[in-house]
Amino acid sequence: MADWCLLVIGHKSHLVNLDLKIIDIKNFGNFPSDFLKKKKMGIEFDLFGKSSKLLPYNLSDIQKNLQRGPQIISPKDIAWIVYNLDIKSNDVVVEAGGGSGALTTALAQASFPKGKVITFEKNKKHYNIVQKNLDLSPYSDLVELRNEELMNQTESIPCNSIVLDLPEPQSLINWAEKSLELGGKILCYVPTINQVEKLLSSLSQWSELEISEIMHRTWQTKLDAILPDTNILGHTGFIVSARLLNR
Amino acid sequence: MADWCLLVIGHKSHLVNLDLKIIDIKNFGNFPSDFLKKKKMGIEFDLFGKSSKLLPYNLSDIQKNLQRGPQIISPKDIAWIVYNLDIKSNDVVVEAGGGSGALTTALAQASFPKGKVITFEKNKKHYNIVQKNLDLSPYSDLVELRNEELMNQTESIPCNSIVLDLPEPQSLINWAEKSLELGGKILCYVPTINQVEKLLSSLSQWSELEISEIMHRTWQTKLDAILPDTNILGHTGFIVSARLLNR
Amino acid sequence: MADWCLLVIGHKSHLVNLDLKIIDIKNFGNFPSDFLKKKKMGIEFDLFGKSSKLLPYNLSDIQKNLQRGPQIISPKDIAWIVYNLDIKSNDVVVEAGGGSGALTTALAQASFPKGKVITFEKNKKHYNIVQKNLDLSPYSDLVELRNEELMNQTESIPCNSIVLDLPEPQSLINWAEKSLELGGKILCYVPTINQVEKLLSSLSQWSELEISEIMHRTWQTKLDAILPDTNILGHTGFIVSARLLNR
Amino acid sequence: MADWCLLVIGHKSHLVNLDLKIIDIKNFGNFPSDFLKKKKMGIEFDLFGKSSKLLPYNLSDIQKNLQRGPQIISPKDIAWIVYNLDIKSNDVVVEAGGGSGALTTALAQASFPKGKVITFEKNKKHYNIVQKNLDLSPYSDLVELRNEELMNQTESIPCNSIVLDLPEPQSLINWAEKSLELGGKILCYVPTINQVEKLLSSLSQWSELEISEIMHRTWQTKLDAILPDTNILGHTGFIVSARLLNR
Repeated sequence: MADWCLLVIGHKSHLVNLDLKIIDIKNFGNFPSDFLKKKKMGIEFDLFGKSSKLLPYNLSDIQKNLQRGPQIISPKDIAWIVYNLDIKSNDVVVEAGGGSGALTTALAQASFPKGKVITFEKNKKHYNIVQKNLDLSPYSDLVELRNEELMNQTESIPCNSIVLDLPEPQSLINWAEKSLELGGKILCYVPTINQVEKLLSSLSQWSELEISEIMHRTWQTKLDAILPDTNILGHTGFIVSARLLNR
Repeated sequence: MADWCLLVIGHKSHLVNLDLKIIDIKNFGNFPSDFLKKKKMGIEFDLFGKSSKLLPYNLSDIQKNLQRGPQIISPKDIAWIVYNLDIKSNDVVVEAGGGSGALTTALAQASFPKGKVITFEKNKKHYNIVQKNLDLSPYSDLVELRNEELMNQTESIPCNSIVLDLPEPQSLINWAEKSLELGGKILCYVPTINQVEKLLSSLSQWSELEISEIMHRTWQTKLDAILPDTNILGHTGFIVSARLLNR
Repeated sequence: MADWCLLVIGHKSHLVNLDLKIIDIKNFGNFPSDFLKKKKMGIEFDLFGKSSKLLPYNLSDIQKNLQRGPQIISPKDIAWIVYNLDIKSNDVVVEAGGGSGALTTALAQASFPKGKVITFEKNKKHYNIVQKNLDLSPYSDLVELRNEELMNQTESIPCNSIVLDLPEPQSLINWAEKSLELGGKILCYVPTINQVEKLLSSLSQWSELEISEIMHRTWQTKLDAILPDTNILGHTGFIVSARLLNR
Repeated sequence: MADWCLLVIGHKSHLVNLDLKIIDIKNFGNFPSDFLKKKKMGIEFDLFGKSSKLLPYNLSDIQKNLQRGPQIISPKDIAWIVYNLDIKSNDVVVEAGGGSGALTTALAQASFPKGKVITFEKNKKHYNIVQKNLDLSPYSDLVELRNEELMNQTESIPCNSIVLDLPEPQSLINWAEKSLELGGKILCYVPTINQVEKLLSSLSQWSELEISEIMHRTWQTKLDAILPDTNILGHTGFIVSARLLNR
């Protein structure tokens, strides 16, 4: 795990890697990381004339700085997935695929300190991106990242929750029934209604079926011109979840 | 903490209190709780001709069974609040007011096992409801519930996050600036735009201001008639958050 | 056509039928219609101590006072349908079924004064409701209301637009291709995605396919508590339209 | 008025101006307009190997081909404005400002054949764009376009409806009260909540106050991948309307 830190300059914050020799802040300037390493957390110092300080960083700082690979699940959906699945310490969560690791990191934080996330990502390039992004966070120890495809033949894994962000999640429902503890939930994230239909067919024996769309409408924060933002996501994916009460 | 358990009958689950003498399941029937107490978790048994079993329960089971008091924050908003505030183990969270305890319980689970939630609820009746609802969950030990009003004069509490679900959150911004650790966030939940405006005025020195509305659109799950639900909440509240980077 | 009129009492308006002997205003009182018949349009008079007047009425007054029968298409959808179909004077529009006549009346007004609306409604009870509601408006002369089912075998009707609010609109696409003028549009209003799919299959040779949902979010108008209304329609129907450019 | 026509090539339609010497179709080719002038409406002919024909055009063809100037009111809002104001033949409508003429043209079509639209546009450049766009339509005779600012001192104009798409519509409420017939409506289109608030203050003596937002969610039409479009407009403007029942 690299030596990350939140550098506050005036009213803005920047996630910086102190392992690099030179810290380069966009639209501001660059300077040796040694300069920062001598600073104590929370104590103000001068940086090119600006009042600055180092602070601990959190998950949202990481999420904003993920290396982009395959499409990243948006914050509104991550929030709902983690809550809907009721992830908490001690939980074992299986995730496939890994995407860019945005959800992986959030699942890991929610299951911290005593849970575990097992993430399947068959694509080597994506696998590397997930690994790199996980290293941004303090939770990489909780994640078992497998460079393989989750398939119906994969050995079952006793777990509390399963998240599938894959084109054909319906093909893994049998595996899920074998792996999931009774009372646990599966959640599938799919872009099209056609996929929702296939899922519904295969989940007919499950309980508490839900299909959700989460919309996040942000507003501009200028006091004299309060209005909703023009550009919002009209659609990301349908979230289909179900609970296993009988096997 | 009472002896709660999830009773599965066929494809439906019911949160039941084994401390009661008689278990009464709506539209099903009633029977002595002793009958259930002898059962082992996860093992099927017959209940009036229906295959049944006991299972551990989770937060969503609790949320569906909260005693109703003041308006309950809806799941879509709870999910976003917990995620946006980045609550995790070891965090100290201050909440005012307590409402019905739905958010309190979610905050407690997110900060489990080593965090802490300090909840202010001045109204004695609501305080009792929060207490009762907290007792449904395994997290009541993490919550310090205070039957008092959070005011600007209240002694400051070092904390990582502050959630205000109150009519005039702008009056507590000074208190928040004293209490919150640098890098921490305040989040206010308010129904009207007029309240948003007052908040924006008082948060002008804060960073990362955001105004959000979360909409949750649920769909019917019948395979031959897939359509969005007619009744959705058109509005619950605006979520205004800001981060303290400078004091 | 009955003798309808808009009665304004203070800041509220009421659509009243002067052909009735007694005018009964909810939460206000009742009085002989003769009293109103002597009044001139727009001239104030006293009604039980309230300043009142008679005014001409318009389509929105009618829409609010329709006799309820089968589900009424909501104003947001009527507005989009009339605009999307580009209805104007001289147009011939075919509609099936008639519903409660809300859309029929709007189509008639849009095609006024020289257009024509041909409405198929097989259900005798609904047919009577449409007829009664049409009589509220000054446009009943423009509407040919048929108490029969529109079927593929129905003789073709040269027309500029076709609106289908029926469970199986896909069964009428052949009829539409024969009846519609080149350049004209068909528009189908269906509640489920399953119906949308069937329609898409049958419209594959058409141009300018569009699937739309219209959402109408209303806000409360109290100056000191501006917020969106809580109860909005989460779903009414999908609007599928297509243009016939080739036969 | 120029000699416009709808040219259909295969499954696509193109609005073309036969007054130009050369017709240039993007991603297709160009050819002399004389070639089209000899063709009869609706009769197929060959164009570079593609089955083609000429058809009459309608308002939606015009709207898609408007010259862009100031921001164009979007179709979803135009549809609601025309319907909400109940525009029909014989109506006199006052509009300020003219924008790019998209709404002007729709108001003119709705008031066709015997109504009238009086449009105020003080900006000479915008005025010219409105004029040019009006000339696309067959309705320019119904529109009186004034290159002046509508102000409280402007002589009153007896009318049935008033539409204000201006930064400070509240300053024109007195003028509206003098000009509007009793029973008529004013409608203001404003982007920010701050403007909504100022309007509400000045409309306190009016009736039937409404604040609306119209959202239009479009879906992709590929049968094997049905999903909502990602890019939708999160916000265009708030629509505030009120009715004048008392002067």
